[in-house]
Amino acid sequence: MSFSLGKRLMAEGLGAGLLVATVVGSGIMAERLAGGNVALALLGNTLPTGAILVVLILAFGPISGAHFNPAVSVVMSLRGELPSRECALYIAAQIIGACLGTLAAHGMFELPLIEFGIKARTGPAQWFAEFVATCGLLVTILAISRFRSEAIPVAVGLYITAAYWFTASTSFANPAVTIARALTRSFSGIAPADVPMFAIAQLAGALAGLALMHWLLSPTPAPAATMAAKRS
Amino acid sequence: MSFSLGKRLMAEGLGAGLLVATVVGSGIMAERLAGGNVALALLGNTLPTGAILVVLILAFGPISGAHFNPAVSVVMSLRGELPSRECALYIAAQIIGACLGTLAAHGMFELPLIEFGIKARTGPAQWFAEFVATCGLLVTILAISRFRSEAIPVAVGLYITAAYWFTASTSFANPAVTIARALTRSFSGIAPADVPMFAIAQLAGALAGLALMHWLLSPTPAPAATMAAKRS
Amino acid sequence: MSFSLGKRLMAEGLGAGLLVATVVGSGIMAERLAGGNVALALLGNTLPTGAILVVLILAFGPISGAHFNPAVSVVMSLRGELPSRECALYIAAQIIGACLGTLAAHGMFELPLIEFGIKARTGPAQWFAEFVATCGLLVTILAISRFRSEAIPVAVGLYITAAYWFTASTSFANPAVTIARALTRSFSGIAPADVPMFAIAQLAGALAGLALMHWLLSPTPAPAATMAAKRS
Amino acid sequence: MSFSLGKRLMAEGLGAGLLVATVVGSGIMAERLAGGNVALALLGNTLPTGAILVVLILAFGPISGAHFNPAVSVVMSLRGELPSRECALYIAAQIIGACLGTLAAHGMFELPLIEFGIKARTGPAQWFAEFVATCGLLVTILAISRFRSEAIPVAVGLYITAAYWFTASTSFANPAVTIARALTRSFSGIAPADVPMFAIAQLAGALAGLALMHWLLSPTPAPAATMAAKRS
Repeated sequence: MSFSLGKRLMAEGLGAGLLVATVVGSGIMAERLAGGNVALALLGNTLPTGAILVVLILAFGPISGAHFNPAVSVVMSLRGELPSRECALYIAAQIIGACLGTLAAHGMFELPLIEFGIKARTGPAQWFAEFVATCGLLVTILAISRFRSEAIPVAVGLYITAAYWFTASTSFANPAVTIARALTRSFSGIAPADVPMFAIAQLAGALAGLALMHWLLSPTPAPAATMAAKRS
Repeated sequence: MSFSLGKRLMAEGLGAGLLVATVVGSGIMAERLAGGNVALALLGNTLPTGAILVVLILAFGPISGAHFNPAVSVVMSLRGELPSRECALYIAAQIIGACLGTLAAHGMFELPLIEFGIKARTGPAQWFAEFVATCGLLVTILAISRFRSEAIPVAVGLYITAAYWFTASTSFANPAVTIARALTRSFSGIAPADVPMFAIAQLAGALAGLALMHWLLSPTPAPAATMAAKRS
Repeated sequence: MSFSLGKRLMAEGLGAGLLVATVVGSGIMAERLAGGNVALALLGNTLPTGAILVVLILAFGPISGAHFNPAVSVVMSLRGELPSRECALYIAAQIIGACLGTLAAHGMFELPLIEFGIKARTGPAQWFAEFVATCGLLVTILAISRFRSEAIPVAVGLYITAAYWFTASTSFANPAVTIARALTRSFSGIAPADVPMFAIAQLAGALAGLALMHWLLSPTPAPAATMAAKRS
Repeated sequence: MSFSLGKRLMAEGLGAGLLVATVVGSGIMAERLAGGNVALALLGNTLPTGAILVVLILAFGPISGAHFNPAVSVVMSLRGELPSRECALYIAAQIIGACLGTLAAHGMFELPLIEFGIKARTGPAQWFAEFVATCGLLVTILAISRFRSEAIPVAVGLYITAAYWFTASTSFANPAVTIARALTRSFSGIAPADVPMFAIAQLAGALAGLALMHWLLSPTPAPAATMAAKRS
């Protein structure tokens, strides 16, 4: 079954929007209720995010591929699976959807619809963390879509669940989500000035993941040689 | 395999009852033990609810479809998958089962069997949250039952796990459950006067989800045109 | 593939033992670390128990059926799926394995190998809770093994995860585990005098679940009538 | 599809590295945020570890078998599934990858890249716990890879999730990970002097698991006898 570009863009925008509404909304809820315990707040932010990713990839994967993430769309375009013009439109839909997701979260929690983030997230350690997080995300996607593509929704949800905790930056790993999180002053926000370096680190990590998996998953002459040896 | 209407109604009532017993019971347990930390109480309310949903949909889905939710039954009826008379009986069974679920939870926790809720849950932000939560629930159900119906139990469980945290209202998203939660004064209760607007917002959200997915999942002329072009 | 009775009994004993080692061990660990917050201790007791159940049923289900629970074995025997002599041996293996599980947990946590439980768990509300919990467990097992047996491990793990929180008794739901938990004074213990009523309530709940599902899942004359009508 | 030894070693190293980066990184994050509540810190350490194991085994299992663990590689070698020379190289790759994982976690969290662990983890109870944990891990792997190999990633993730809590040692269960955790002073560290006994207990547990499952899963003469009886 194939879907028109308009529907695929809607799926990308809707998915990115629901993802960001979950990240921002659960961050607000968790911080309000956690009584100052940040580990508990992060737990209340992590579980919903991992859970909704599984749902959204199950729901929209068959329509648009369920990227929701410019770093993923760029990699898919480089692999020849998404024409560059569509890639640009995917990214636009992801960013617009993601920003509307922040607005929706603010609407549900009675906050001003747009406020700029004030949480500083910068410095080499944070950038390295975003590089690692996005590299690992692409390793996950490229390896598992090759071997067991039906496990991709659960795998991506679990990967992000882990990455929230093992990266010092709580693993944004998504330039569209990063932009949308610059529009909130709540738990999951980021200062707008810190967005560009995050996006650059994320794209660099995605490209590193692509290069690594391109080599690791490429056909190897060894088995052929073995077969030839067996034949003789 | 097909089941008689009586058995299907029992499955809907039993499922709604066990769902509400879990929501209300785990809310009581979690609030009692959490020592005043509301994030911890909500966590102890969220995980059991998400878990039991997976179980109940696995168990009763093949019998009755496992709606447990008037908003879902109305949508299925509008899609022509449930005759309107059966839809009305489904809703009655769901409401009766759900209310008995509250009683069962009270019985297990030594509370008066019926008490009316006192927690005010009202205002446009809460209604918008219920609209979003139920719209998202129907998007989840309609998309995933189209593409990968065997993943519906896990997807609905994870969706509600996320929605507890990303909506300011903790995502009731179910008119029968909302009515049953008006019969408890505990953690998960709601003041009876606030029930109608919740139910209206939920139904509106469900219809919005239906409309959105009706368009998004409908056949598209594009591929046919492409095929024709290829043939010529 | 079929396994000798000796191996099946070993699988039942080993599974019950690892289950109880997890219940008791994680209870000790969680209570020690939780700093007096009982919700947090229960969370640290719930998640490992649900997780290990999935693992143990995956591992031993194909060998012995992975009952680990006299209430389940009795029901399977009544359904004619387990000869009564084997049922008695299953129950003996489950009880012995479960008690050794308590010893193993005590050994790992440097506690006296056997101590009798002192936590009073009694009264009609607790018994009703055990009745509901075990009834729900059998509903889960009988319905899902009929429709989607490959989902049984995950379903049972999630059911117990939920039942820890929605029942006032934290859902023992297993006479062998109840006996073994009378041998520890730690978080998950129970006073030995309270064991018999728990076991009776559990068996009653299991039989109620069997009766309910026997009716709900039985063939129905309706479809046959429909077919006949179509033929004419 | 078969992969060259070089690629398989890279998969083992990369997997072990990402696993340790998650264990150590999430330990640092969780301890920093948990405000002194160790149960909460352990929860923030457990969930990411269980989650990433599922992801890594899905991603690298088809390439190298996804051992990431010398105890597993030794058992596979004894079963004749891995030549001893490759086994030695696997172990080297696992140790190197695991140590680089600690470095990566330190880099992301702005800690000195290498520091030696200071947490004493020793004594018979801890060794017994490591024995039990690794024995259970091999029971899980050997039984489930025989019956339902596609469930191995989820089963191992859930097993370790449980074992973190039911063993007094938080279940290292992996000599390569144990060595790498001797290079951090943070939450998940271990004093270098305590590493050898942990590794010995882990290997002994793995061999016990192999022996147990070798007997439990071996073909049994009973069914053959039954068949013969039926034939006559």
